[in-house]
Amino acid sequence: MRAFVVREHRARASRARSAVVRHDGGMTYTLVLLRHGESEWNAKNLFTGWVDVALSEKGVEEAKRGGRLLAEAGILPDVVHTSLLRRAITTANLALDSADRHWIETKRSWRLNERHYGALQGKDKKQTLEEYGEEQFMLWRRSYDVPPPDIELGSEYSQDSEARYAGEPIPRAEALAQVLVRALPYWESAVVPDLKDGKTVMVAAHGNSLRAIIKHLDGIDDATIAGLNVPTGIPLVYELDDNLVPVKAGGTYLDADAAAAAIAAVANQGR
Amino acid sequence: MRAFVVREHRARASRARSAVVRHDGGMTYTLVLLRHGESEWNAKNLFTGWVDVALSEKGVEEAKRGGRLLAEAGILPDVVHTSLLRRAITTANLALDSADRHWIETKRSWRLNERHYGALQGKDKKQTLEEYGEEQFMLWRRSYDVPPPDIELGSEYSQDSEARYAGEPIPRAEALAQVLVRALPYWESAVVPDLKDGKTVMVAAHGNSLRAIIKHLDGIDDATIAGLNVPTGIPLVYELDDNLVPVKAGGTYLDADAAAAAIAAVANQGR
Repeated sequence: MRAFVVREHRARASRARSAVVRHDGGMTYTLVLLRHGESEWNAKNLFTGWVDVALSEKGVEEAKRGGRLLAEAGILPDVVHTSLLRRAITTANLALDSADRHWIETKRSWRLNERHYGALQGKDKKQTLEEYGEEQFMLWRRSYDVPPPDIELGSEYSQDSEARYAGEPIPRAEALAQVLVRALPYWESAVVPDLKDGKTVMVAAHGNSLRAIIKHLDGIDDATIAGLNVPTGIPLVYELDDNLVPVKAGGTYLDADAAAAAIAAVANQGR
Repeated sequence: MRAFVVREHRARASRARSAVVRHDGGMTYTLVLLRHGESEWNAKNLFTGWVDVALSEKGVEEAKRGGRLLAEAGILPDVVHTSLLRRAITTANLALDSADRHWIETKRSWRLNERHYGALQGKDKKQTLEEYGEEQFMLWRRSYDVPPPDIELGSEYSQDSEARYAGEPIPRAEALAQVLVRALPYWESAVVPDLKDGKTVMVAAHGNSLRAIIKHLDGIDDATIAGLNVPTGIPLVYELDDNLVPVKAGGTYLDADAAAAAIAAVANQGR
């Protein structure tokens, strides 16, 4: 019966798929998380959130290198899910092109967008730290459920009039808790079905939308997630079991040394 | 009743749509055809077909300019359909990014690929002209229904083992007639429903897959289509009536002068 289920599952997966039959007869599914390369505003140390900035030149190179790491590891996405923001979309485009997977199915959702940074969007991080003090600054940056102040509708860095969000219940400010609440319905309704089809799934998104997914996958508690950073441009690969539980908690970065160095650097942002 | 139908139609179109209600109460639909910018092999004068070459630097600039022309004309695609080939995908990515529409829905199909050039793929156009003579050369290049010789399976420029085509009834050589036969089912099943939803639809594809669509739209006969060339990187905009008949036969190039000059240049290829 098990063998039949596996065969049937594999029949559904119409192309070259990486879903692997384990020695105990179960399946594993492959998920690749990719945080966009450095953006023009990462480089300038500004709070970005939903402001639709481009990749910096460094970010472009990071994205291409991310694709080469995938190709070298033989991890070939069958479908990519992106946010609606240029830095994630361009990262996906460039990475997939260098992995020769530019032609795969592409899906997008605002639910994979970066955390909405509210009234802080467009502000300098260092200046904000000086203006509000360490405690408030760290609360906005790292508390699980305290969002920054709401952005003013119609203001320079607000997205309320953008066509891409028309009709959607978009936020005016978010903490990670709110990102989780809006990202998980997309995870369940769009990403999980692709995984269960046996597709190798890539999610090209942002520091906080990826942290939300990782928190969910690895069952990380609200306090511990504060200390977790995702480096830019380095594919993080999860093998998931039948119940979508990671075979190895935390997954595997395709360049572990570079990931460790980058995680340390992210933790020092705003200093 | 008519007003109700129009309202209902507009309700279905959930975002900013360009479907326009004409003064007589009918709808028009907007279609943008975009041929990829110059590729590395266009520049080298080689038969390309399904060989997955990149854009040349000139092609990159053409693609970006195509997007600027769209933005300046206020023609904003809601969905893009591309082939599975890098030169069309990159053109769509770059054009949409410069039009600030990088975030729209994206669909791809091998049925929008360039004509399969069979055994000629990878060959120099000028050399082929000299080797086979003007008559045979022009028959392969421009006859409506005489395909070049089949490509040898497993040969250097064959795509039969590529994952992106797995399970698909892909050709080994095509004339325009065969392109039409495999492109029109996608037109009917994927592009037309998007148009009827009131979306502004962009198709980013190739000289011959676009000629197939244009032949169908404008009702061009088999002999006349031979003389029709589509320039690279210049958006060709069709307004279509309720029956998907072009309001203006041949559509409108967003840069008519550049289009005319480019069409003349394409006609001289291989000389």
